Amino acid sequence: MLVTKLIEKKRDCGEMTAEELEFLIRSLVEGKVEDSQMSAFMMAVCCRGMTERETADLTMAMMHSGDTVDLSDLPGVKVDKHSTGGVGDTTTLVAAPLVAACGGTVAKMSGRGLAHSGGTLDKLESVPGVCVEQPLDTFKDIVRRIGIAVIGQSTDLDPADKKMYQLRDVTGTVKSIPLIASSIMSKKLAAGADAIVLDVKTGNGAFMNTLEESAALARSMVSIGNSLGRRTVAIITDMNRPLGMAIGNGLEMKEAIEVLRGEVPMDDPLVSVCLTLGGRMLMLAGLAEGPEDAKRKLEEALVSGAGYRKLCDMLEALGGDISYVENPEKLVAVKRKVSVCAPNDGYIASFDAKSLGVSSCLLGAGRFRKEDKVDPAVGILMKKRCGESVRKGEPVAELYVNDESRLEEAVSLIESAVNYSEEKPGELPLVYTIIE
Amino acid sequence: MLVTKLIEKKRDCGEMTAEELEFLIRSLVEGKVEDSQMSAFMMAVCCRGMTERETADLTMAMMHSGDTVDLSDLPGVKVDKHSTGGVGDTTTLVAAPLVAACGGTVAKMSGRGLAHSGGTLDKLESVPGVCVEQPLDTFKDIVRRIGIAVIGQSTDLDPADKKMYQLRDVTGTVKSIPLIASSIMSKKLAAGADAIVLDVKTGNGAFMNTLEESAALARSMVSIGNSLGRRTVAIITDMNRPLGMAIGNGLEMKEAIEVLRGEVPMDDPLVSVCLTLGGRMLMLAGLAEGPEDAKRKLEEALVSGAGYRKLCDMLEALGGDISYVENPEKLVAVKRKVSVCAPNDGYIASFDAKSLGVSSCLLGAGRFRKEDKVDPAVGILMKKRCGESVRKGEPVAELYVNDESRLEEAVSLIESAVNYSEEKPGELPLVYTIIE
Repeated sequence: MLVTKLIEKKRDCGEMTAEELEFLIRSLVEGKVEDSQMSAFMMAVCCRGMTERETADLTMAMMHSGDTVDLSDLPGVKVDKHSTGGVGDTTTLVAAPLVAACGGTVAKMSGRGLAHSGGTLDKLESVPGVCVEQPLDTFKDIVRRIGIAVIGQSTDLDPADKKMYQLRDVTGTVKSIPLIASSIMSKKLAAGADAIVLDVKTGNGAFMNTLEESAALARSMVSIGNSLGRRTVAIITDMNRPLGMAIGNGLEMKEAIEVLRGEVPMDDPLVSVCLTLGGRMLMLAGLAEGPEDAKRKLEEALVSGAGYRKLCDMLEALGGDISYVENPEKLVAVKRKVSVCAPNDGYIASFDAKSLGVSSCLLGAGRFRKEDKVDPAVGILMKKRCGESVRKGEPVAELYVNDESRLEEAVSLIESAVNYSEEKPGELPLVYTIIE
Repeated sequence: MLVTKLIEKKRDCGEMTAEELEFLIRSLVEGKVEDSQMSAFMMAVCCRGMTERETADLTMAMMHSGDTVDLSDLPGVKVDKHSTGGVGDTTTLVAAPLVAACGGTVAKMSGRGLAHSGGTLDKLESVPGVCVEQPLDTFKDIVRRIGIAVIGQSTDLDPADKKMYQLRDVTGTVKSIPLIASSIMSKKLAAGADAIVLDVKTGNGAFMNTLEESAALARSMVSIGNSLGRRTVAIITDMNRPLGMAIGNGLEMKEAIEVLRGEVPMDDPLVSVCLTLGGRMLMLAGLAEGPEDAKRKLEEALVSGAGYRKLCDMLEALGGDISYVENPEKLVAVKRKVSVCAPNDGYIASFDAKSLGVSSCLLGAGRFRKEDKVDPAVGILMKKRCGESVRKGEPVAELYVNDESRLEEAVSLIESAVNYSEEKPGELPLVYTIIE
């Protein structure tokens, strides 16, 4: 097989065989495919698409490009969740401990923040002492003991995806459903879970801006998961606003702690989405009979504090200093807080969630380049939600600041990211649809 | 401007501005564009296409990526010709001297053989002593003195094309009309001719196999040339057979010499196509009133030997040993000749011209890798044309052989490249259409 011929086949709208995709990915990992060749192939995929069968075969080839994790010696159905990335989107830190508190087994490998979106590993590391790089044995021990562990992905997992993602980032080949779906699912499958709940974000703060695109991505990933023998469900949730009130690593950890301590009402959007996601995780694990049963169990775990204790136990097992969890103000100790205020009386009509995420990065909460360091304490605490009324001069957001070098830029970005109206706007749904 | 954004624009079917293309090509030449990025962009062009305006702007940007040749101090209309590449396609060595003999000014930069197709530089070098790398001043001196010079392209010309071609070759992005047209035309325009005659080959021995593709390429190139102020005409000619009887560098030089000495009939396909191409060159140069007038003048130059003397003068000016031209058998002195014979009585129904070209490469007449050396004496002399009758055991082709290592392969490739029929087949046209 010649790599150039394979590229030409996709260019000419051909359908790749499993053997061809396996050869291409194996050659890539062995260093026998030039960067230029892989990039041309991925652009051909962007332009010509892939069938469900091709996408599943590509995923399988990527999944087997490195080590795969065997979780079969852990008890029960191992259930994973994955978010396609959003702003103020702290669902893992809430839903996963609640699921563990209900008897679920959550052995999860997570990622770092990407562009304007946050990442669970960065949030975990906001607690001093936490080490997200753990040997597989330690990881399994924690899961066996506590029912939950969230760590970083091993470097030996899915090397094809690492190579491909690095190229996609600079070659305009990020936006392709087969490439996004195979990237996400190959990592999830390599990480060994039996069942996967996908939180597919849609809206101006998501990587997929329209419901159509998000639904297509969700369908593709569910199809891949199920065709490769993993029970997979996708929930399409709204990302036209930050999901929680906190944007930034320590701020989001603090918010998750507050939710798990029962300090946030049950009808809060973050809590509501976490109960939906966690509910599906319980159902896939065979631990709930339906959505209502699942919701009841999760609410019990929340009210009883069992979920909170799971989070504490896990953070402690990862080396975290629990005094920060007990007293979460310590997570967000900054030099200065700056308010962004409403210019007039009115209502919050809408947010540009992506700009809020970028603004938080400007304060140091996220990375513009891979090598940038994040500051765990900084970020944005939203003071108002979509649809809420505001008075002129009332704070809409509070910035947690250490490094002021790009503060002005961050403030003006937030100002332009909040849209006001005179009339109370209609409500956007939180959950659009569930694809299974 | 960000390169990634430009790639995404073409991926999403956008139309690039002149400034964007100029920025991309300038950045490429300055080393600021990764190979992976340029390859992804070119694949997007393969899949999404380009408008005539975009193709012309891309050509202009490539043309100005390096030096351009100024021929304005040479007398008359400087006329160039270019073939898209074929087998047994010796037209430059015949048509250009005839045009010079009729008073035309031919200052031409040529290329080497590519894949199965021959290249004029390799053919010129079959005459011992010829040096195709000449300083610009020497080149112009020869043109001023003799009216014709054919040399290699200066390395400072069109560096963008060199970079792009190198990538296209391995990334499955060769077959794209905007990329082929801009590659050819940017080099022709940078080389400074006022008028250009394009010989666009079509058929199984050409890079464009169908008349539709060839016509689309021809139209694109003519449109680029005319829009950038160079009089440009394209002639679509048949390449479902070797044009001449000789395939191989010395063999083709010998055939050109024989044509120019009047030893080949005027209705021979090679002579006929050369008279058409040369005629259009004369017309563009303002040296003939129409096709009939041009043909008459070229025939006179052939019969009088004036064209032959131009070829001799040019080869001598390039350092060639003219004894080889006077006695062309010396050009093709090989260790061994091997005949491929007809298996039955019948007619030659058709050829696979590409396979004949590859077979000639197997004997050492062409390159499989850029660094391969060519043997000037070896190749294939066809003994029969399409439509001719053959008797069982009669030679169809004679192989001129020095290195026998791949002789068997070459013979069997020729055997499979000749198709026979019991009935006399219909004749294919030589010239399909002229686009101006």
